Amino acid sequence: MGNVIVAQSGGPTVAINASLAGVIEGALSSKYDKIYGSINGILGIKDDNIINLGDIVNTNPDFLKKLKVTPAMFLGSCRFKLPNVDSNDPIYNTLFDQFKKYDIDAFFYIGGNDSMDTVDKLSAYAKQIDSPIRFVGVPKTIDNDLCVTDHTPGFGSAAKYIATTTMEVIYDAQIYNSPSVTIIEVMGRDAGWLTAATSLARNEYCCGPDLIYLPEAPFNTEIFVNDLSRLLKEKTNIVVAVSEGIRDAKGEYISASTGTLDNFGHAQLSGAGKTLEYLVKERLGVKCRSIEVNVLQRAAAHMSSLTDIKESVNLGKQAVWFAEEGVTGAMVILRRTSNSPYEVEYDNAKIHDIANEAKEVPQEWINASHNWVTDEMIEYLKPLVIGEPKLDYADGLPVYVTRN
Amino acid sequence: MGNVIVAQSGGPTVAINASLAGVIEGALSSKYDKIYGSINGILGIKDDNIINLGDIVNTNPDFLKKLKVTPAMFLGSCRFKLPNVDSNDPIYNTLFDQFKKYDIDAFFYIGGNDSMDTVDKLSAYAKQIDSPIRFVGVPKTIDNDLCVTDHTPGFGSAAKYIATTTMEVIYDAQIYNSPSVTIIEVMGRDAGWLTAATSLARNEYCCGPDLIYLPEAPFNTEIFVNDLSRLLKEKTNIVVAVSEGIRDAKGEYISASTGTLDNFGHAQLSGAGKTLEYLVKERLGVKCRSIEVNVLQRAAAHMSSLTDIKESVNLGKQAVWFAEEGVTGAMVILRRTSNSPYEVEYDNAKIHDIANEAKEVPQEWINASHNWVTDEMIEYLKPLVIGEPKLDYADGLPVYVTRN
Repeated sequence: MGNVIVAQSGGPTVAINASLAGVIEGALSSKYDKIYGSINGILGIKDDNIINLGDIVNTNPDFLKKLKVTPAMFLGSCRFKLPNVDSNDPIYNTLFDQFKKYDIDAFFYIGGNDSMDTVDKLSAYAKQIDSPIRFVGVPKTIDNDLCVTDHTPGFGSAAKYIATTTMEVIYDAQIYNSPSVTIIEVMGRDAGWLTAATSLARNEYCCGPDLIYLPEAPFNTEIFVNDLSRLLKEKTNIVVAVSEGIRDAKGEYISASTGTLDNFGHAQLSGAGKTLEYLVKERLGVKCRSIEVNVLQRAAAHMSSLTDIKESVNLGKQAVWFAEEGVTGAMVILRRTSNSPYEVEYDNAKIHDIANEAKEVPQEWINASHNWVTDEMIEYLKPLVIGEPKLDYADGLPVYVTRN
Repeated sequence: MGNVIVAQSGGPTVAINASLAGVIEGALSSKYDKIYGSINGILGIKDDNIINLGDIVNTNPDFLKKLKVTPAMFLGSCRFKLPNVDSNDPIYNTLFDQFKKYDIDAFFYIGGNDSMDTVDKLSAYAKQIDSPIRFVGVPKTIDNDLCVTDHTPGFGSAAKYIATTTMEVIYDAQIYNSPSVTIIEVMGRDAGWLTAATSLARNEYCCGPDLIYLPEAPFNTEIFVNDLSRLLKEKTNIVVAVSEGIRDAKGEYISASTGTLDNFGHAQLSGAGKTLEYLVKERLGVKCRSIEVNVLQRAAAHMSSLTDIKESVNLGKQAVWFAEEGVTGAMVILRRTSNSPYEVEYDNAKIHDIANEAKEVPQEWINASHNWVTDEMIEYLKPLVIGEPKLDYADGLPVYVTRN
């Protein structure tokens, strides 16, 4: 057999290196010979920036163990969209020449929607030129917005971090006996999955957020102010979770309503949280702060979900094994077969049905008042955040692994 | 013997409940009879909002274990400054009547500078009226700006969270092969201890922040832009850590230079990070983002330092034992006797020398270019972040304990 090559693309998650470790483990246990890594996504193949991952494994006994819990992307990323297959663009020749040079039998791309588009195009081109090379995508995105798969690797860890953070913010918010509103802004321009995960902070030792707003339901400022007024009569400290992408009934982003000018005269768009903070202060005259859950929601490997990490490793392995069986133009997927006990099956699906489609939160998982999620949503989310990987610590910090 | 009462005050930290657990354990192993808790600081004594903590311990076997790792304040907080001792304000009568009613022999106040001011005044008043009640302060503040003690409980955990976060942000920042600047804004209006802790993210698997700016050294915008230009010629992705309180040579906050107007016409002050983000985009035309390490730096119990938690428990115990020995008008302190191996002694110091004084980063711990810290600073910080408390998890989230 020939060799295989793997690359990572798009924005980082906590689990994308776990999938890389899975691809490496899968390749080492397969009939394939060498396992190469392309630096900065597909660009590494184009520019001949390629490393031998098998060599790294052989010289660093702890490498795979560390890699599974390392955030971001060991191989680096890119944002590069391939031209249409029928464009006669020379890039396709370049890439397939490189595949030939490295005797590549299969290419694995770990990424989100755009990366799946690349897999789709490369497999279509291979078909056109009658190349036997297999192209398999391995999903990842904290946003959980890929179709067909039950959920995406990276989402469970982000959900766990967001739920924990929400709980800790609520503890922080409750210390004073004077009225306050705290607004937590969570990532998610079009899909509310991550914001929905704040609901997991409601348990027997935390009241959870009082209100949750997702982009899938229209956001009405007047109803929001009324919701808050009502709640402030019942309790002292209110915590609200909002997606960055909440929109009004006309589809306008709520964040767009408070453009501010910086001292260079540039318009600076405030986030949804900041916009609502100003609104609450203005309309209710109550103490209000907004907190943007920052880039850590996609980078906090120190608070990842063991379920997520394990599934991400397995999906990487499966991708290699499916390629061995002849699968191409496909993405590996998770199919949930049982919620309690939680069980998943690994399968693959035609990538053409997945790329460039996005999965929103279903309307029936949002409550009638559009300010919380239903029990079905919570049942869906719960198993995804279970378990804590055992991290090694050195000098008090988690031990990760880097190429640099 | 009579009873003791404990309260918490000021802003939350991750370790202030560990000190509460220490006071409870100390009281239970002392000659004192009952251990009461005052809700919302000194206000609970004034308003007779007092609970019996011994009862809670007796009915919840896991209570103290959970309390030691719970963020924020189990007893709630307040921001209440006592009037001068000589003011003849009736509050003193009210408080001492309450002490009599509950047969209080000693009062323990876990808090920062303002709380130590309260302890100072109560002990001075007790002396005036010849009351034998003992008043002992237990320090806490993530800012590490209390004098006399080597460091403050809560700081080590905040430093650990900030260093870990910085490392994860750096991993996140390095995935693309195109120039970028990331600015991390850390809490600290007047003291740079927390921002200095980002230096711990420089180790054998992380390059650490490239530049660090503390409020103790004047910040010069032109030198900053030059530093960045120079670095961008050497490497692709630059990460900068700044204190929220960085100031120019005239003492003006850097953040004050970009007041923006929201859509209600109100001036909104951008943070130092956002201000520098605008500046970098304007002056260097490079991709730039700023990240405000949010309230989690004082609330992320899921990433606390075992050293910090243990010391916080011990300080709580020591406070009770010192009171038993007759100590009053004092704060318990930590004295570092050795750096390697790290060793501390517990002692107490006259509170009058501590209250209303702040400890800044010494100039000799900042490098000559004012853009990093010295090895002495790193040696000072290192032991404080060591160790990870074993947290229990339920449904994927850390288990904490609440009064509600």
